[in-house]
Amino acid sequence: MFEFDVDRSVTAEGPGVYRGKITERWNIGPVPNGGYLLAVAMAALEQELAGLSPLSVTCHYLRRAQPGPCRVEVERVKQGRTYATAVARLLQNDNEHLRVLATFGPLDRGGAPEWIDGAPPAIPEGGAGMRELGLPLPTIAQRFEVQVSPETLQWARARAEMPGAAAAKITSAEIRARVRFADGRPADLSSLCLFADALPPPVLAVMPLAWVPTLELTVHHRAQPAPGWLTCVFRTRFLFGGYLEEDGEIWDEAGKLVALSRQLAMAPASR
Amino acid sequence: MFEFDVDRSVTAEGPGVYRGKITERWNIGPVPNGGYLLAVAMAALEQELAGLSPLSVTCHYLRRAQPGPCRVEVERVKQGRTYATAVARLLQNDNEHLRVLATFGPLDRGGAPEWIDGAPPAIPEGGAGMRELGLPLPTIAQRFEVQVSPETLQWARARAEMPGAAAAKITSAEIRARVRFADGRPADLSSLCLFADALPPPVLAVMPLAWVPTLELTVHHRAQPAPGWLTCVFRTRFLFGGYLEEDGEIWDEAGKLVALSRQLAMAPASR
Repeated sequence: MFEFDVDRSVTAEGPGVYRGKITERWNIGPVPNGGYLLAVAMAALEQELAGLSPLSVTCHYLRRAQPGPCRVEVERVKQGRTYATAVARLLQNDNEHLRVLATFGPLDRGGAPEWIDGAPPAIPEGGAGMRELGLPLPTIAQRFEVQVSPETLQWARARAEMPGAAAAKITSAEIRARVRFADGRPADLSSLCLFADALPPPVLAVMPLAWVPTLELTVHHRAQPAPGWLTCVFRTRFLFGGYLEEDGEIWDEAGKLVALSRQLAMAPASR
Repeated sequence: MFEFDVDRSVTAEGPGVYRGKITERWNIGPVPNGGYLLAVAMAALEQELAGLSPLSVTCHYLRRAQPGPCRVEVERVKQGRTYATAVARLLQNDNEHLRVLATFGPLDRGGAPEWIDGAPPAIPEGGAGMRELGLPLPTIAQRFEVQVSPETLQWARARAEMPGAAAAKITSAEIRARVRFADGRPADLSSLCLFADALPPPVLAVMPLAWVPTLELTVHHRAQPAPGWLTCVFRTRFLFGGYLEEDGEIWDEAGKLVALSRQLAMAPASR
């Protein structure tokens, strides 16, 4: 069994109630990664709504979780013929840490019109690794193989001159990278929310290293990933007032868009 | 009192329970607009979480609503010192139509770093009206004054040649417009979710006229709008499999980004 499957597995212990265990393997410092926590909650949703695919999944992060046992409670909001909407609550010691609202359904409705205005970012094979970005590498970095685009490597130069000079060298707060699980696990629908939150926040290209906690993360699941690398771009366009959005596109090796993500996160406040 | 305030007003009738009335004034065909319905649910959230501003608000649309009485039930998920997360359920005849998950807090944390990678779309003063887009105008169109950009008017030409030829004429499925309430009501935080869903779906630039029901809408509230017009751009980049995303930016007349929106919607399916 692969690391991700072990670490997000949950066991039903009653109607809509699941037990799981948050491991340290997906930590950033002492704190489990938000995409991983969401993947644990989604494991319960997937059991509850078996046969349907996640479409839109939103998670609000209420309190920092920590490695250790957790409980996930699932409530069906609406069960239709084709679509189901449900809530998942992830708790530790009876405190709710995540509230998830998700709609599941058919991933492909066979829609006739198509309009594709975009393409996966070009990243040379065998690109640079995460280490070359000039950031400290958290535990979670060991879970992935990453190839970063040369443009993203400008981060390292800009960061050496922070604060102040950074903005002059960087034209977009963006990270482009090819990513896959280090242990060979294929990407699938269940792991897209993890990949949506697995790379360093692109806003770190334009501000000093700081904690950038997620308030809310939404992932639109658009297609089942083909085997191989995922090609991702994450970008922050608006950092002000102590908040920032981070938009992501995740493409598979067949050149298909498999997910769009957006999160609202907090930057350091001056008061 | 302005139309929007009358039509979204709710009255507390018990702890966390509110009564309201959905009017026909925001209809698209026989169906109330999704942004308006969300604004009604938010009216209850605003009363419950008085003193805090909406930050991230996600709504899942479960069933079509109709004009008439409604009930909104609010549940506090977490009440912290600075932030509060809550759920709102909008019901008609005991059926839940909307499930909303929202985090409220301070709109400006006084964050020091700033990074603005974008600008309001340029739209000439006194631009064309909605009528010139070549679409039927729903009732809700009477609630707004709209000035559409000349580029968006290419829609009308493309639509005349649909299906098939459209994609050749159109380079992005985008609508850019200046918008304000027709009755002079100033835009505020409470109305941003309405503006995020008030214009015709930009995907109609590249597909024949059809119902494009929203599954999920998320609005990030980033600043209090200054008085005057809102300048908006909405774009769909990925229409396939019977789904599409629609991303929006809403700017105020002072040139400040006031909201980002994203929705997942359904396009006509071939099966």
